[in-house]
This record gives sequence, structure tokens and C-alpha cells, in this order.
Amino acid sequence: MLRIETLAIGSELLETPRLDTNSVWLAQRLAEMGLGLHRKTAVGDDREDLRALFLEALERSDVILCTGGLGPTFDDFTKEVWAEILGAPLVEDPASRQAILDFYAARNRVPPAANFKQALIPLGAVPLHNPAGTAPGVYWEDPPGHPGRRIILFPGVPREMKIMWENHVAARLAPWASQPRRTLRMVFGSVPESALEERTRPARERHGDLAWTILAGLHHVELLASGPDPAALEAALADFRRDLGPDLAFVGPEGGIENAVLDLLLARGETLAVAESMPGGNLAARITAVPGAGTAFLGGATVYTAASKAALAGLDPAFIQAHGTVGEPVTRALAEGIRARLGADWGLAVTGNAGPTEDKDGPAPIGTCFVAVAGAAGTECRRFNLAGGRFELQNRGAAWALDLLRRMLLPNQAEPTSP
Amino acid sequence: MLRIETLAIGSELLETPRLDTNSVWLAQRLAEMGLGLHRKTAVGDDREDLRALFLEALERSDVILCTGGLGPTFDDFTKEVWAEILGAPLVEDPASRQAILDFYAARNRVPPAANFKQALIPLGAVPLHNPAGTAPGVYWEDPPGHPGRRIILFPGVPREMKIMWENHVAARLAPWASQPRRTLRMVFGSVPESALEERTRPARERHGDLAWTILAGLHHVELLASGPDPAALEAALADFRRDLGPDLAFVGPEGGIENAVLDLLLARGETLAVAESMPGGNLAARITAVPGAGTAFLGGATVYTAASKAALAGLDPAFIQAHGTVGEPVTRALAEGIRARLGADWGLAVTGNAGPTEDKDGPAPIGTCFVAVAGAAGTECRRFNLAGGRFELQNRGAAWALDLLRRMLLPNQAEPTSP
Repeated sequence: MLRIETLAIGSELLETPRLDTNSVWLAQRLAEMGLGLHRKTAVGDDREDLRALFLEALERSDVILCTGGLGPTFDDFTKEVWAEILGAPLVEDPASRQAILDFYAARNRVPPAANFKQALIPLGAVPLHNPAGTAPGVYWEDPPGHPGRRIILFPGVPREMKIMWENHVAARLAPWASQPRRTLRMVFGSVPESALEERTRPARERHGDLAWTILAGLHHVELLASGPDPAALEAALADFRRDLGPDLAFVGPEGGIENAVLDLLLARGETLAVAESMPGGNLAARITAVPGAGTAFLGGATVYTAASKAALAGLDPAFIQAHGTVGEPVTRALAEGIRARLGADWGLAVTGNAGPTEDKDGPAPIGTCFVAVAGAAGTECRRFNLAGGRFELQNRGAAWALDLLRRMLLPNQAEPTSP
Repeated sequence: MLRIETLAIGSELLETPRLDTNSVWLAQRLAEMGLGLHRKTAVGDDREDLRALFLEALERSDVILCTGGLGPTFDDFTKEVWAEILGAPLVEDPASRQAILDFYAARNRVPPAANFKQALIPLGAVPLHNPAGTAPGVYWEDPPGHPGRRIILFPGVPREMKIMWENHVAARLAPWASQPRRTLRMVFGSVPESALEERTRPARERHGDLAWTILAGLHHVELLASGPDPAALEAALADFRRDLGPDLAFVGPEGGIENAVLDLLLARGETLAVAESMPGGNLAARITAVPGAGTAFLGGATVYTAASKAALAGLDPAFIQAHGTVGEPVTRALAEGIRARLGADWGLAVTGNAGPTEDKDGPAPIGTCFVAVAGAAGTECRRFNLAGGRFELQNRGAAWALDLLRRMLLPNQAEPTSP
């Protein structure tokens, strides 16, 4: 297996909120080829730092993908440092010089002298044409003293980097792209990460030939298995379906609980309406994020006041006055009210407290969340105690609501595990 | 000057499109203290890779800020590897054990056994309390054999990392803070990045002593200026307010157009209701993301069908039949309808096409977005042509709607610049 790493060069990556998206993109392309990345590094425009980093990378990696520092300015010296540590002179590439002249001519401008520095290529390396800018890339195989190593220098501009990868680099790494790794992605609802960890250990151990990763997100926990053998992944999935039952919400490279909910509604030929206070619109937004959501999702109400609960979901103001705006009675009434108002098969409602006002000794301290699901057979309501700040609580309230509905849509209507 | 680096630990950072935002946030905090970062590294959950990385970092840096790998699962072993290479045993911290018990007790749950692994701290290091989760952090000064070095271990969850930085770590690094850099953050609405780049060049050049960064996001474009002198930043802000006028939507370290809208409504003592199809709940969610939004925001309707436009915003089905579900008539009617239904001072509505169904030769190709603002003086409607996939279009539709409303709430009701 090739050892591959990325080096992102530029002080802006250390000093500003700019994220290194190049390495994320490259990682995805490598994964598609069954190649892995073992490290990503970002370093500033400092010759000594670059020198130290390049020497380390030469020791530990077969392929070094560098982005940035190929431009015409005083702080661009990626090529110079590489050429220096490998003892190769920089020589002008006539085609790259011509490309710079042509690029400027097409814009009726004359290139500044500093620009021609970009046409210098280390002796023995291959220049990579840049159709989107003036800095050519560099592909350097077997550099002096380091046979078998490959150093690839890309411009830092994402668009230019991507074109060079597609046009020149992907094909050169293709011979190693045997054994593409496949990934099985399983999404779990209403199961905390640590509980999932314990409950899935036996199945993960039975499938120890696969590489396992567990990721806790805002909307669900996901478990990723990867390996070269599709049959091994199929077998693991069958095992998980048996062991985890309804806790396994969704399987697929993208998507989550909301996809499972919409798939179930579609299969049943049923529709959904929502009413939410605590998630503040996030419940509707999760559902409508799925393309085609409109086939089952009729609409929703974000009800931030007693008056809006009355006007949009038909609640009686006296009822809200008597029972409060958070709790089982109002949540049930909202689910039933929005179901009736929109003529949906299912009504899903969430109330709760996402802060900032604490209600420590009252009925709804921050994190309290009530979810009600109203259907033809009646209404179910659950209370959850969620963790996090306002943003997390709004999103988790939506996620737990979707998962309760999902479980009720399953053929045998399994109960959720206790939170 | 302290040599500081960040290490982000987790295979998801190498194998999935997940970006390491923790190191970006830490870099900003360090910059504010006048401290610099010389390297950022991301590495997977592999013991050998961690071992090699930690040994290198000990050689080259005074302060090592590690994020990730402190959780309860099988692939969390940041502490173990540090303890091993420094020859320090891991011992249970009673306060951290108790915090785990308390965290679960507050949720009426019993912690899984694997959870207590999180209470183990290297001998000689200081545990950092985690008020938002169960994994304590670690502050380790002068570890065995490496006097003067500081190793700080944070959980990978951004919220937990941030709290620990604020509560425990910032003060411990404060003695080295020199010439703290301050940052001025200006948020612009309805102005494309390239237009903002051109229009702000004169002002940026007049304030060339400041470091400038422009960042285009999903909801707005922001311009960051940083420098050691607060007076220089004040002067720049005054210049920008004069040059950019109503295009400058919001100034502050966090927040955006929605904050400006809520501030304006609060100052006017007015209320808002929304009706949205294209943003699918994202408009309400942007508004309710602001703590205390409920003082001005009454509620909203996500209207995905003609029937829900009728049931929630009072539209006449015959009117929708005649005018279609996307366009100026229906958007105006939605803004007026939701304003009347909820008794709000302002009604804001968005319709459009976020895909996946193309309407190439029809009235609403993908990216079409209509925004209407209904107030006491009448209703304004604009059409925008937005770019991006479904997710981007849903979010941009919400952002452009909020910015049109913001401009109408300004004292002199400035018109938006053409998109």
C-alpha cells in the first residue's frame, strides 16, 4: 500500500479562518481509487519550516501531494525549497514560459517579470500544464537520492489543483489503484455513541478484517466499515441488521434518518406535517434537505408563540394557558393539530427548551424535549433530556423527533431504546 | 516567541469530507493573543502514526494543542499514546469519574463501563473539567524528560474544546501573549465576493497596515481585518461604514444578517412572521438560531404544497391554481397572508426552485428565488437568480430574503444592490 500524505503550504492556512479544502478533495479522490492518506499537514510560508517538513515527508511517504506556494510572489518558494534539498537545479521550461505569455496576451496584458519565475521546473521533473492559471504544476518521480518517491506540486487555487489532478496526476497513480476499498456506512438513531460502541463490539470483533470508525454527529451516530472485499461488507451488514434491529436507521454513502423516514412514508403511500417550537425550523429543514421530499412532506409550522400555535396548528389559547407551551399536553395537541390542519397521515411535533432562558426548577430545564407523533391509531409522546448549546439542542430535537417517527413507521412499530 | 502547533486526531479527518475546524478556531484565538501557529497536522486513529507524530511535535514545539481521541470508544487512544511515550502511568481522576456519573445521572441513565476510561489522566498532568460532555481535557506542563513543553489535549467536539480553551487554557498561555492582535469582522449581505473585493480595495489600501482576509460563505461574505492597534481598526470600520453604507450588514465576532434583522426589529419594537417554500425551513432556522429570537419572531410556515399555502397562510387555492406556486403573485400573497395570520408587523416570504426538478424553459429554472416583504406600507418583491446545489440554494434563498428585509428595516430604507 502506497503511503501518501498531503502538505498544504501558505501562512493564510495558519493565520486566517481559511480551511484547507484541497486536502479534503484529494482525500476523496484517493479513497475512490482505493488509496489512503495517512497524514495532512499545513505549514506557513517559512523556508526553514518547509525544509524540515519536506525532509520528514521524504522519509515517511511514497507519494507527497503538495499544494500552494507556486505563485509569482515573494512568499512563494515551494519549488525552490524542494530543488534545494534534493540538489536539483531549477531550469526554465519553454512551454510553461509560452503559456504565461499566452495567458497574458489573451487578456491584452504584458506579464510582470516576476511571473516568469513560475516557468522554472526542477531538472528531472515533469511540468504539468495549467489551463486555468499561470503556475504550472510539477510531477517528480524518483527524485535524486530517493528512488520510488513521487513528489507532486499543485497550485493552491482549488480549481487549478483539481484540473491538474484530473488531467495529469490521477492516471499516474492509477497503477496502484488496485483493491479499491469500499465503505459501508450505517446510521443509527436515538442511540448515544458510547452505548453504540458497547452494543456493536461483538459484531465488530466478528468482522475484525474490516477497518471500523465511529462518528458521533449532531443528527445521528454513524459507523463506517471499510475493506477491499464487498462480500465481507455484505456479511457485516447482515450481522448488524440482525443485532441492532430498528436502531439501524439508514444504510448508504449519504443521508440519514430523514431519508429513512421519507423512504418509509413513500413505501406506505403516506404524508407528513410537522409543528415545532424548540427546533425552530430545523425539523422542516432536515426533511426538505432530501431531494424529492415534497412527495411525502406537506408542510410545517414553526410556532414560537402561543398565538402562532393557535393560528397555525389550531390550538385553543385557553388550553395553552392551562398547560404551558412546553410539555406533553401541548406537544400532543400540536401533532394532532398540524395533522388535521394539513390533512396529513402523520403529524410530528416538538416542544422543549433550547435556551437561553433556564427553567431550572420548572417543568422544562434547558435540554428538555417533548416529541409527539400523531397517526390514525392515536398519538404517542416521549420526553427526552438532550445535551448541548442552543444550536446542538435545536438540531438534536429535530433528530430525535425524526427517529421516533421512523420507529413508528417500521412494520412492527418497535419502541425506541431509552435515551 | 512560543512555537505552537496543533494536532487533529481522527481517521474521519483523512477519510471523510469532515474539515478540521478546531485548529482554525484555535489559530484565531492564538492570533488574538499575539501568538502564532507554525504547523497544523491531521492524522488518523493509528497508534504508530500517533506515536511518530507526538515524538516529532515534542522536538519542534513548545506548546502542542491536540484535539480528538479522548472519547470512550475503541479508536480513542490519544491519552494512552502520550502516556506511553512519556513513560507516565494513567491514573483515574476521582473528580472526572464523578463528573461522568453526574452527567449520566442528570439524564437518568447509567454510564456504560467503557465511559470511565475517559476519567484516566496521565500522572503529573492536570485534568480539565468538561461542562458539556464526559471526556475531560488534559493540561500537561513539563512532561517527563521535556521540561518547558506544554501538551494540551482537547476533545474533538468543537463546543467542548472551546469551553476548555476559554475556562482553562487561554489563561495558562496568557503570560506569553505579546502585542495581541485584534480582529474586526464585517458581514456583508447581497454583495457577491468579487464585487466586494473590488469595491473595498480603496478602503483596504488606505488601511494597508492591517491584515485583510475575505471569506465567502453560504449566508454572507465577510471581511476580516486584524492588527495590534485598536484605533487603526476603529478607523477602518468608520471608513467602511461610510463607503459601503447599507451593504455592511453586521459587525461583530459572531453572527450575521439574522442578528442585524433581529436587532433592527427590537429597536423598532416590531415583530416578524415568515412563509417559505424553497428554503424549506432554513429561513425560520436562521432566525431562531439567534438566542432570544422569540422576542421579535412570532413563527413561520413551511409551505410545500398548494394545500399548505392555503391552510397555513390563508391563500385561496384558486389563486395558486391561476398563478402557480413560484413567482411574484404567490410570494406577495404568502408574505401578506402570514403577516395577517400571525398579526405580525412584517411578513417575509420566499418561493423558488432549489431542484431537483429542472424547469429550464418554464418560469422557474433551478436557482430562481422570489422574496417578498409585506409591511404596513405595502409589499415589496424581488427576483434573484442564485447558484449552487439544493443545499446551497435553500440556504442562499434564506440569506437573500433576510437581507432584503434588513435593508427595508434600515432608517432610510435603502434599496439592495443588484444581485
